[in-house]
Amino acid sequence: VWERIGPHLPPGAPIVSVAKGIENETLLRPTEVIGDVLGRIGAGNAGKRQMVVLSGPNIAGELARYLPATAVAAADDMALAERVQSVFSTQWFRIYTNNDAIGVELAGATKNVIAIAAGILDGLSAGNNAKSALVTRGLVEITRLGVAMGAQAATFQGLAGLGDLITTCVSPEGRNRHVGEQIGKGRKLEEVLGEMESVAEGVPTTRSVRELARRHRVEMPITEAVHSVLFDGRDPIDALTDLMTRDPKPEFSTGNA
Amino acid sequence: VWERIGPHLPPGAPIVSVAKGIENETLLRPTEVIGDVLGRIGAGNAGKRQMVVLSGPNIAGELARYLPATAVAAADDMALAERVQSVFSTQWFRIYTNNDAIGVELAGATKNVIAIAAGILDGLSAGNNAKSALVTRGLVEITRLGVAMGAQAATFQGLAGLGDLITTCVSPEGRNRHVGEQIGKGRKLEEVLGEMESVAEGVPTTRSVRELARRHRVEMPITEAVHSVLFDGRDPIDALTDLMTRDPKPEFSTGNA
Repeated sequence: VWERIGPHLPPGAPIVSVAKGIENETLLRPTEVIGDVLGRIGAGNAGKRQMVVLSGPNIAGELARYLPATAVAAADDMALAERVQSVFSTQWFRIYTNNDAIGVELAGATKNVIAIAAGILDGLSAGNNAKSALVTRGLVEITRLGVAMGAQAATFQGLAGLGDLITTCVSPEGRNRHVGEQIGKGRKLEEVLGEMESVAEGVPTTRSVRELARRHRVEMPITEAVHSVLFDGRDPIDALTDLMTRDPKPEFSTGNA
Repeated sequence: VWERIGPHLPPGAPIVSVAKGIENETLLRPTEVIGDVLGRIGAGNAGKRQMVVLSGPNIAGELARYLPATAVAAADDMALAERVQSVFSTQWFRIYTNNDAIGVELAGATKNVIAIAAGILDGLSAGNNAKSALVTRGLVEITRLGVAMGAQAATFQGLAGLGDLITTCVSPEGRNRHVGEQIGKGRKLEEVLGEMESVAEGVPTTRSVRELARRHRVEMPITEAVHSVLFDGRDPIDALTDLMTRDPKPEFSTGNA
């Protein structure tokens, strides 16, 4: 395989990853998967390949129409992030640099679980008050996981975290939101996935994120609720009622949820 | 005046404020205005009156239909906040306590400026990528002001900050978003305000927030842009282009904007 790919990947060329998700079973992030695969196919410098994560609130259809958008270029090496910033910046695409590639990748994956929950609320016609609360509390729980895994909390409050989360939860064209909406309307997961032409990566990601939450002992009530609705056939209204009627709490505290 | 109001305000009864804004000229927060007015009308214990701020992503029409919603009850005295939490909580209205009343009030006022900017983007048909970026960067700048004024950053990331900001920027019925949308379509402010039956408090609040930013030497580029569009007749597209084409920056740094 490397004989065919190698010529297109000169030794010094960094790889810019725009993939989002966490692999089931291995729980690897996209750049880790890329590194792993390069190693398996015999790429000589696989371990030393420089990688940058490019992510943000970027609905493809809007970018294609040159509508204004922003993104984050994240790498351990800030000079490399700046190089990507300068290559991809245009008058309608503003790129910020960030040194927390792990956080950007985790945010890009975990927000899809919250997007499914947002879709479920849409399917239940729960309204914008509920959806705003979901996004706010969802951000709290995905940040908590990220920090436990070595990411910076600030990254989750930035464009690749909050920014992407909002677009994904609000835009009608989002695939993960769409799956949630159909589930909220009472349809079966297999049926919904069967009729889609594209992949709703949030569905397998929900399994990975729940597994990561368990390993890192992080409380993620929204992720738990989405998991039980998707895979255990739990009634969405029951799951929502549970989230709304847990013990009264302070907004911020240790183990806050 | 106090003779008429006094009997309805027993000495020990706390006041729960649900008002949002910052008074022009005095730059007082709503609970400060209440305290000031109580003093002026001769309420004996005006200075010692206990106050709680109740705020969150709460579109009234949705609450009236018993759709699920959340809010924050904020007071210096957490026992008092818990009392309000227990009085107002229902199965469809989940209340969290918070000890940062200043932050909750500042968030509730400043988010209306960002909502006007969101409306301007809607008027320009700029899309959801742009709006998500606006909410994300808007939250950064209103947090910066809040922290400079003694509020806690976490409050801005919570339901009364981010949560309310999202609802206000996304919901079609928001008055401040509506004003922005009309401005984005090229209409004049006086004309838009003249035909509204309700108050768009974000318009006067924009003057107050800009003044606070100057006094506290905090950089607020979105607020500056909204101010120039509303009051100096600046072209919205020019203002947006400026925000998109400023010098390339890291996402997080000192004086980050």
